[in-house]
Amino acid sequence: MKSIEYDCVRLEDGFWKNKQKLNEDVSIYSVWNRFYDTGRIGAFKCDWKQGMDNQPHYYWDSDVAKWIEAVAYIIKSEPNSVLEERVDGIIDLIEKNQWDDGYFNIYFTVSGEERFTNRNSHELYCAGHLMEAAVAYYQTTGKDKFLNCMKKYADLIYKVFKEEDGAVFTTPGHECIEMALIKLYKCTNEKRYLELAGFFLDKRGANKKDYCCVPQSTEYYCQDYVSVRDMDSAEGHAVRALYLYCGMADYAKETNDDNMLEACRKLISDIINQKMYITGGVGSTFMGEAFTIPYDLPNESAYSETCASIALMMFAQRMLEIDNDVKYADIVERSMFNGMLDGISLDGKKFFYENPLEVNLETYKRNRSTTTEEHLPITQRVEVFECSCCPPNINRIMASIQRFAYAVKDGAYYINQFMDSTITDGENIIRVKTKYPCDGKINITAKNIDELNIRIPSWCDKVLTNEQYEMKNGYMNIKNPSANFTIEFEMKPVLVTANTNVRADCGKAALQYGPMVYCIEGIDNGDVYSIRLADNLETQIDYDETYGTNVITAKGYRKSKNKDLYYKLSDDEYEQISVKLIPYSCHANRGESDMIVWFNLK
Amino acid sequence: MKSIEYDCVRLEDGFWKNKQKLNEDVSIYSVWNRFYDTGRIGAFKCDWKQGMDNQPHYYWDSDVAKWIEAVAYIIKSEPNSVLEERVDGIIDLIEKNQWDDGYFNIYFTVSGEERFTNRNSHELYCAGHLMEAAVAYYQTTGKDKFLNCMKKYADLIYKVFKEEDGAVFTTPGHECIEMALIKLYKCTNEKRYLELAGFFLDKRGANKKDYCCVPQSTEYYCQDYVSVRDMDSAEGHAVRALYLYCGMADYAKETNDDNMLEACRKLISDIINQKMYITGGVGSTFMGEAFTIPYDLPNESAYSETCASIALMMFAQRMLEIDNDVKYADIVERSMFNGMLDGISLDGKKFFYENPLEVNLETYKRNRSTTTEEHLPITQRVEVFECSCCPPNINRIMASIQRFAYAVKDGAYYINQFMDSTITDGENIIRVKTKYPCDGKINITAKNIDELNIRIPSWCDKVLTNEQYEMKNGYMNIKNPSANFTIEFEMKPVLVTANTNVRADCGKAALQYGPMVYCIEGIDNGDVYSIRLADNLETQIDYDETYGTNVITAKGYRKSKNKDLYYKLSDDEYEQISVKLIPYSCHANRGESDMIVWFNLK
Repeated sequence: MKSIEYDCVRLEDGFWKNKQKLNEDVSIYSVWNRFYDTGRIGAFKCDWKQGMDNQPHYYWDSDVAKWIEAVAYIIKSEPNSVLEERVDGIIDLIEKNQWDDGYFNIYFTVSGEERFTNRNSHELYCAGHLMEAAVAYYQTTGKDKFLNCMKKYADLIYKVFKEEDGAVFTTPGHECIEMALIKLYKCTNEKRYLELAGFFLDKRGANKKDYCCVPQSTEYYCQDYVSVRDMDSAEGHAVRALYLYCGMADYAKETNDDNMLEACRKLISDIINQKMYITGGVGSTFMGEAFTIPYDLPNESAYSETCASIALMMFAQRMLEIDNDVKYADIVERSMFNGMLDGISLDGKKFFYENPLEVNLETYKRNRSTTTEEHLPITQRVEVFECSCCPPNINRIMASIQRFAYAVKDGAYYINQFMDSTITDGENIIRVKTKYPCDGKINITAKNIDELNIRIPSWCDKVLTNEQYEMKNGYMNIKNPSANFTIEFEMKPVLVTANTNVRADCGKAALQYGPMVYCIEGIDNGDVYSIRLADNLETQIDYDETYGTNVITAKGYRKSKNKDLYYKLSDDEYEQISVKLIPYSCHANRGESDMIVWFNLK
Repeated sequence: MKSIEYDCVRLEDGFWKNKQKLNEDVSIYSVWNRFYDTGRIGAFKCDWKQGMDNQPHYYWDSDVAKWIEAVAYIIKSEPNSVLEERVDGIIDLIEKNQWDDGYFNIYFTVSGEERFTNRNSHELYCAGHLMEAAVAYYQTTGKDKFLNCMKKYADLIYKVFKEEDGAVFTTPGHECIEMALIKLYKCTNEKRYLELAGFFLDKRGANKKDYCCVPQSTEYYCQDYVSVRDMDSAEGHAVRALYLYCGMADYAKETNDDNMLEACRKLISDIINQKMYITGGVGSTFMGEAFTIPYDLPNESAYSETCASIALMMFAQRMLEIDNDVKYADIVERSMFNGMLDGISLDGKKFFYENPLEVNLETYKRNRSTTTEEHLPITQRVEVFECSCCPPNINRIMASIQRFAYAVKDGAYYINQFMDSTITDGENIIRVKTKYPCDGKINITAKNIDELNIRIPSWCDKVLTNEQYEMKNGYMNIKNPSANFTIEFEMKPVLVTANTNVRADCGKAALQYGPMVYCIEGIDNGDVYSIRLADNLETQIDYDETYGTNVITAKGYRKSKNKDLYYKLSDDEYEQISVKLIPYSCHANRGESDMIVWFNLK
């Protein structure tokens, strides 16, 4: 199937419309302001010299590139001269400071370091993000200055890496350029960009010279331990890995490379069956920001980077398009409503880089009496990070979130994600009205649609509708749908358990309501560790304006305080209490607080 | 109360007799052999030069000193010319290589480094252990050569530190000498040694110059953050802290220093109410080998050093003698049967330094894909460590374990620990016959005893006896006991829970049978994380010769494997199984295995 692009779908109302509007009205400016303050915008002047403030970091190009990509999507649906002028200003600087041979990189231009010598300096990663932004900006505005700059840069990279073997390394230390080159190829029809993507993919895992030049990394960290076609487990830095896998999926699709596609299937299967948090977060450890071993999913120290959730959505969506397997759309939904969404505050201004599934404020006091400090995730979102990849990644995914909603294949339409929206795809129109994820009712108006496939979410046990349908690959397949009909996915709070192998969740349960994972915050519930939820779940659901969705009150018990450190279990006492649960993605919006996703039952 | 010393109590049979015999027959030689191989014994020649093998480490004196102390205890009960000659040989070398002014330290003698300049080089810690060994050797053999050497050394330390302020630091970086000096004072009646102990205690926390010279340490690490009299929470390196607290208790007792005694009470209360594992292990983290914050008791990464359990036994025994509060005897028992005993293998040859309460072999695979390695405890005991403080500490505690059994106060006798043994204290005789901890039956023959106090262990709910008694401070107080009578502490497996504040054990239970904490090993039970014990405990108890005590078979359930990573709790399936539990201290004696102390219930 092929997704219906963001520019052919209009969000009308509801949960995602609100989130997108917040992105357009607040987040995009907030990220710009912080990027401006920190020198990231000014850096495009390429006039930094030793002794000046705001020394450009080697990943700054990519931060701003993602912001530009977001603006491209935003101004397509709603012209905005302020944002467009800002982007044009940056593009002018890129054109001005691009080297004669096409090279562009702020850090290597101003630092005096020799280009293409340090694999770990994100040079090709920055190039990739710039290319993606250039394609988006060309496609939404028709302006080709940026695109031409990036074509010239891509040509240089082709020459240096593929023709001349003229760099100290062969493949990027941080992947991204692979999928970017394929976007550039699809936009320009220049076959060499596809070839270059294939070159980078083929060389990975085959170049001793690559990992030797990054002494602090292992072959696993950079996905360089084996040929991509032989990969069967997700390894190393999670964002790098997932960007690579996206590139592999794109390349496999464009070239019908079955071996590479098979590797993609094994990789996503490894992730979703063994290495993914219930939130759709991935990357279990801050050490190398990496995937670790199967079922190693600690909650408090979960790295689960916002960018990794976004990258998982991107990879899963690609696999959905290729294999049309509904399970991949479930993964997109899981990450979208939980791991990704946790990355941004309710006011749209602040961001998490790491998204742990447990916060215990006491842990932060632990470091005091020890000689070495542990790494601990921050407990409150901030406006900008030194390494600020996640905020503009949220900007660009929010600005185009509707691209995940619909797809077509052989004339049949697919509804993959439920957003109150309209397909504005010429004569064939689908209008979905829904309060999803507040409830499971989906009202559909279909015009000129012969065949409609509607995903039944994996969390749903029961579908109510008068419409006739057959099940097909996990979709409700409706031939000649009525002009207007309603489907209801029965939505109720469900206790979820983790696979026996997940030690961190051993004996515990989580609560999911529709696609959203819930959490228990200390600010609502006092000591979260003394709480046990009733295993015969008794709940009350209430819509909460602040969260744009429901909060849940559940029957529970509190283990009484006992002054002894250890005592007979039979001496335990419990009082009945009401436990308030809020969506996981909404935690940490009311100051620092303990938080758990996995709780004990009684 | 005053403990009846090791040389007035003879172990006759049973659990501790076997352990002590293993120490005398196997461990003492095994430790010697490894110390010999690694150059620790030869180092006393003080002839090491640059370029030679086996460069002496600055803590080697202390390793061998503890071994000598153990030999002193062993040869008191059973003459052994082989061991005695070895010790005499070392003592000759100490005398020969002692500096003219009394200084003795292998490392500072051979390295050329200036003495008394590096607070963190364990110089006074080594001196302390040598003094303790010298006192023990003098008391059991009557030979005074070693004692005289150490008196001379103590005199020098008095002069340099107390009279001249002639060292770069004021107080030891690693405590030990405080209690050693008090032992030396009590043995020699030389008041200056008590004064010097008081000097080191008084200066602690009051010397900016001390912690400035140990840049890698914090004030907490070395218990240097506040005056000892103001201490109310156990902080920093656990063994250092506990050795300090032992010195404080000794000093408070000798000098009737109520403020210092009050600090000791607060410290032990902080430990046993907030910072102690169920095994009596202490020191929650390898980072600084330290106490951390209250209730921070992670199982898999527990440091819980063997020496720290021994030191806790020493501190608790001192507090028991001072305050006569039965709860301190319970702590001694808890550490003795669990945290301390886990430090040595069943064959008596191999040792643990760290004693975590959970082993998951998968965790060791995690490091592979990350760029930084976590510290992980070893999973199998070894014969010697580079820092090999624990093995000879086990030697000396095992060789004198009977000193914890009995005490006297105002003519009344106390039984604090239950060992099959005889008090050989002149005319007054107590003979205890027991299989403890295999069962709770204690048969007592009392001769010339007017008043007997028998501790009721905290784990015991019900005492069976025909003897008349009153309860007094947690003891059964028996006036004019019968010549022979039996007491039975009803012993049955009990599920134990941890304080609500202990997050690591939240929702879990442990199993205790008498004083022993049990564990579930993978080698007996397969995947330990899929196991749930029946919460209406159904067990079978069987004596196991290998362990010298009982193994327990309990009714349990195994959560079925499900291929999904997350699924509805209601889809969970369980099969009933038998779970085998063995004493925690016996784990890791049959090869590498997963192990848990805290398990889930169903």
